[in-house]
Amino acid sequence: LAGGKMLQIKRALHALNPAEIANLLVSLPPRERMLVWEMVSPEDDGEVLLHVPESVRTGLIRQMDTAELVKAAEELEIDDLADFLEHLPETVTQQVLKALDADDRARLERVLAYEPDTAGGLMNTDTVTVRPDVSLDVVQRYLRLRGELPPHTDALFVVDRYGAYLGALPLDKILTRAPEELVANVMERETPAIPAGESAHDVARRFESADLISAPVVDAKGVLIGRITIDDVVDVIRSEAEHNMMSMAGLTEDEDLFAPVRSAMSRRAIWLGINLLTAFAAASVVGRFESTIAQVTALAVFMPIIASMGGIGGSQTLTLMIRGLALGQVGRGNFRFLIGKEIALAAFNGLLWGLVVGGVALYFFDNGLLALVACLAMLVNQLMGACSGVLVPLLLKRIGVDPALAGSVVLTTVTDVVGFFALLGLGTLILL
Amino acid sequence: LAGGKMLQIKRALHALNPAEIANLLVSLPPRERMLVWEMVSPEDDGEVLLHVPESVRTGLIRQMDTAELVKAAEELEIDDLADFLEHLPETVTQQVLKALDADDRARLERVLAYEPDTAGGLMNTDTVTVRPDVSLDVVQRYLRLRGELPPHTDALFVVDRYGAYLGALPLDKILTRAPEELVANVMERETPAIPAGESAHDVARRFESADLISAPVVDAKGVLIGRITIDDVVDVIRSEAEHNMMSMAGLTEDEDLFAPVRSAMSRRAIWLGINLLTAFAAASVVGRFESTIAQVTALAVFMPIIASMGGIGGSQTLTLMIRGLALGQVGRGNFRFLIGKEIALAAFNGLLWGLVVGGVALYFFDNGLLALVACLAMLVNQLMGACSGVLVPLLLKRIGVDPALAGSVVLTTVTDVVGFFALLGLGTLILL
Repeated sequence: LAGGKMLQIKRALHALNPAEIANLLVSLPPRERMLVWEMVSPEDDGEVLLHVPESVRTGLIRQMDTAELVKAAEELEIDDLADFLEHLPETVTQQVLKALDADDRARLERVLAYEPDTAGGLMNTDTVTVRPDVSLDVVQRYLRLRGELPPHTDALFVVDRYGAYLGALPLDKILTRAPEELVANVMERETPAIPAGESAHDVARRFESADLISAPVVDAKGVLIGRITIDDVVDVIRSEAEHNMMSMAGLTEDEDLFAPVRSAMSRRAIWLGINLLTAFAAASVVGRFESTIAQVTALAVFMPIIASMGGIGGSQTLTLMIRGLALGQVGRGNFRFLIGKEIALAAFNGLLWGLVVGGVALYFFDNGLLALVACLAMLVNQLMGACSGVLVPLLLKRIGVDPALAGSVVLTTVTDVVGFFALLGLGTLILL
Repeated sequence: LAGGKMLQIKRALHALNPAEIANLLVSLPPRERMLVWEMVSPEDDGEVLLHVPESVRTGLIRQMDTAELVKAAEELEIDDLADFLEHLPETVTQQVLKALDADDRARLERVLAYEPDTAGGLMNTDTVTVRPDVSLDVVQRYLRLRGELPPHTDALFVVDRYGAYLGALPLDKILTRAPEELVANVMERETPAIPAGESAHDVARRFESADLISAPVVDAKGVLIGRITIDDVVDVIRSEAEHNMMSMAGLTEDEDLFAPVRSAMSRRAIWLGINLLTAFAAASVVGRFESTIAQVTALAVFMPIIASMGGIGGSQTLTLMIRGLALGQVGRGNFRFLIGKEIALAAFNGLLWGLVVGGVALYFFDNGLLALVACLAMLVNQLMGACSGVLVPLLLKRIGVDPALAGSVVLTTVTDVVGFFALLGLGTLILL
């Protein structure tokens, strides 16, 4: 990023859309990120900020002065602006609100009244509405007068004179049906209105299952207050799917791969600290059997095998359960089938790989009883892994803890503790 | 699912859309799944089959006779039909092709010519095209004659008389611009055409970054051959995001939580078998130090702590890298920053938790040298975890292996082997 290249970069930036610029910024180490950020043209600033993960956004916003922030905010659509305001210091928020005209301010406040992870928080207020008792011809004349439609408008919404939602009027119907037909006869009544309080998760499921592009949002009285478009829903879908994967490693889906060391430090350290506590639990089991190990050191050789195989088997079940819970596929009705199936699988795998491990024990240590101990410990720990894989996420969910976040810590603690206990305990019973 | 309830279920099924029925089927154990599947009305069969994961689909298709399959196929759009045909036995495919009219067969063959995970495989052939030299008024009269537009049509495509793609004509432009304007003056030239060979992954990134709803697909000569709509892209986005998480547990994103035991057995067993091999590698390190363990059994207590902490630390780095690689954020330019940052984090965490573990060793075993060994082993293994977390996915990618699938196996093998080697090796050097 030497001086001479600045102009080249600036030109390249102009060719990118905000999402692409955001992706570039996310891929840059902190120092380069700030340099490039200063070169982004001010009218893109707002949208770029919305496309980067929260952790990156904070750093970029810190770099901007109030005037720049107000300018960036002015370029945004209402729903995006609402998201954006959440991340600004209070003083800047006040200035942005002042800079808006009364109409926009009222619309913004309507969106801000809802939690960001609800339909109300996702919605945009730029709906175009028509009455049911006019003809398509009138609608079309109105549209021509009105000029350009908001982006991602695939349908107008039909409301009565109190603003209550009646149905959707897709653009292609206006174009393909006879001009003299009434809106009431052409509109689609089955397009469901989404209650403003519905969770973003449910909204995403709804869009996915009905292949929606936009959908109306209504308040408790059925009055149309906005619409949700697919582009915002795609963000929800991606971040939900990533949430599970990142949580399983104790990270958030907003984690910044290129965060400065200092900001990543505390969260990573805490996660390792939690895992250290659970490792102590496993180690203390080993500690209880120190005298057994002193007499049969071969048991120490099998410790990592039994423990890790239990963890791997359990993790497979756990991963399936976490996704199943997220997609709403696991419930009381199929629990019994599920646990039965996972136990059957674990019994099969436990026996199969237990016999292999027993065979290895027999070959290298020439000790039939040691082989029996290793085989039994493998079977016990596979069964334990399967049961924990099913039960741990269900129990965590019941007590309100995110199974994706805490599931693998709890599961591997169980499989480590049980694995060591089975191996060393059986060893003490059978070998001494 | 007693006899009396059948009617109730049948009625409930009628109220669900195909995606919802698919979700219900996925949540059912095999026997109940087949019962409900028989109650789904034939005109929904095709779409339901497309919404269930591949593993479930195979089971459902096996249940249907040829006549039912042909009927289901007839209800589908061309792009969906192409997907569907891939999963049918060859004889049924032939019969479906025979049942289609010549026109549809030609369109279907165009889609089938492309790999399913490319733009050509994702596309639908139901484009509505217009010429650039006509007025909007003419376009509108044509649309009214033509009648209903294909679902998710937000734009018509403008082509020259050889069929080459020129631009997009959004429906809202037809509605809001003056009727006498020419298509050529109104159309959007910047809407990019997607080459048919582009990967589904790149198509998804393109839709996400430009917030597209539909996009034209062209062949090598620039001739418009179809369009891709956002609903198909959403499926790609979800399955890619889930792919990483499922792969890390040795599962596929198609894995069926409620699969019968037999069909889940072989894949799970293979994954455990691979992991057993790597566990043997770690165990063989322990085996080399059997005499050290016999003399200082306390070392066995610290084995699980050092190994698991290395694995956890490395997995955090690995998870970030896998997502970064999937999103195209990791490259040559930022590699050096990345590895430097991860090493710095690991050094900090290794020292911090090494000192804690050393303190515990001192307290319980009253042995300063043992404390030193545990602390150093922790530091070494954290550093190793961080380096593997960065390097393993990059190397796997270079040799063409999916980092999400093989990454955690390789990483934990490294951290187990190095962890045991550091702990027991240092123990041999310092304590004996």
